[in-house]
This record gives sequence, C-alpha cells and structure tokens, in this order.
Amino acid sequence: MPDADAIRTRVVEYQAAFSAGDREGWIGQFTTAATLEDPVGSEVKHGHEGIGEFWDGFQDLATGAEMISTGPTRVAGTEAAFPFRIRVKVGEDWMLLDVIDVMTFTDADDGTARITSMRAFWDFTDMRPE
Amino acid sequence: MPDADAIRTRVVEYQAAFSAGDREGWIGQFTTAATLEDPVGSEVKHGHEGIGEFWDGFQDLATGAEMISTGPTRVAGTEAAFPFRIRVKVGEDWMLLDVIDVMTFTDADDGTARITSMRAFWDFTDMRPE
Repeated sequence: MPDADAIRTRVVEYQAAFSAGDREGWIGQFTTAATLEDPVGSEVKHGHEGIGEFWDGFQDLATGAEMISTGPTRVAGTEAAFPFRIRVKVGEDWMLLDVIDVMTFTDADDGTARITSMRAFWDFTDMRPE
Repeated sequence: MPDADAIRTRVVEYQAAFSAGDREGWIGQFTTAATLEDPVGSEVKHGHEGIGEFWDGFQDLATGAEMISTGPTRVAGTEAAFPFRIRVKVGEDWMLLDVIDVMTFTDADDGTARITSMRAFWDFTDMRPE
C-alpha cells in the first residue's frame, strides 16, 4: 500500500511531466492497466494506449500547456485529490481553467506509487482568457 | 439531470448549513438514500440516518467548525469537486485542515440539485493549529 509521501511525490512528478510536455514520462506515471476519465462524464480511456491517445488529442488542441498547483494535495488512504489551474495555449491565446484531479494509487515494483485511475473535474464553459 | 448552476447553489448551501451548525439543514442537502465517505477509505455511511450519525460524531469532537472555500467548485456533468479549509475547534484550540469534497447529484422534486454521494479527501496528519 503506497504511503502518503510516495503519493505526494507521484503527484509532483505527474504535474512536472505534463508541464514539460514529456509524453512518455507522463504516461509512465500510470500503471499499464490504469484508467483515465478527463473530464468526468466523458469516455473512460484504458491503459497506456488509451492514455497516450488522450495525450495526443490534447496536444492537437494546445500549442502549450502548464499545470499550476493552487493548493495542497489531499491524501486519504490510497487515494488523493488536488486542485490546480491549467494554462493552455490555443492558437495565439493563453487560456486558464480550474481543475481538480482525483486519483487512486498502487505500489510499483520500484517502491514508488503509481496511478491506477485518474478522474479530472472541469468543464469547457469555465475556460477563460488569461 | 441537474445543471451546473443548481449544483453550485447546492454546494454553497451545503457549506453554509455546515458552518451554521444546522444539523437538519445540512442533512437535507442529501437525498434520503445518499452515501457519505468521510474521510475517503473509512466506512461508508448510508442514508439520512447514517449521515446524521456522522454529524453527531463530528459534533462530539468539535465545539465549533467552519468551512472556508479556497477555490471554485469544479462541476463536470452531474458531479462536482471543491476545495476548502475547515476551521475546527477542539477543546480550546482552533485547528485547520485542507479538504476536497467530491459529490454526485440528482434532480430533486423542487427543481434543485440534491447530493447522492459525498467523498471527503483529507487526513488527520494534515491537521495543524491555526
């Protein structure tokens, strides 16, 4: 069972890999069987292949993107939730959107925590110019 | 299906009823069959009776409590997540704790949104003196 420190470290690395545009690094935060629902209510993506398709779809829309933490990661058991703001460049314009990610975790062979599921709470209507 | 405005209104009323110490008003935010898991990983409480037991258990520990919003409510479909800080008085001391609540909603007969489930992300080890 991953501990709170391992979960917090994973969240920091997840945000850093996203902001760095590191496709393989970001996908590697998840277990190979993980699920991704982003936004909540949309079709659930399965495994590294599905998560990679999500990444590629996002990159087609955004020419730049950055996650900015807006509060502490709340760890509860083997799950966590954390608030952030995403800056995303669409065409020539930077847009802002407030998001909360909810994740479950498991132990990886290397002793770190790895993401087994991710659900992202946000809606397009809340996107606004920076 | 409840819309985003109805969900946001419900969250505001939920926080206000909690901070006012309004037991029946707070329980009434939930459907009669709703579930409550607070914190995530603990035993799930069922229905108004179980939710009332949770309220009473909390009141036995805290002589005062207040929810302070720390960011916008993220609505996604019929679900929502929102960050807040709870101020809670234990004995003579005020303590602070960062929490994220995740909720699902349904339409009520009166046209408002009502909570069908609530899961609260926090851990005792993150509680600190104000």
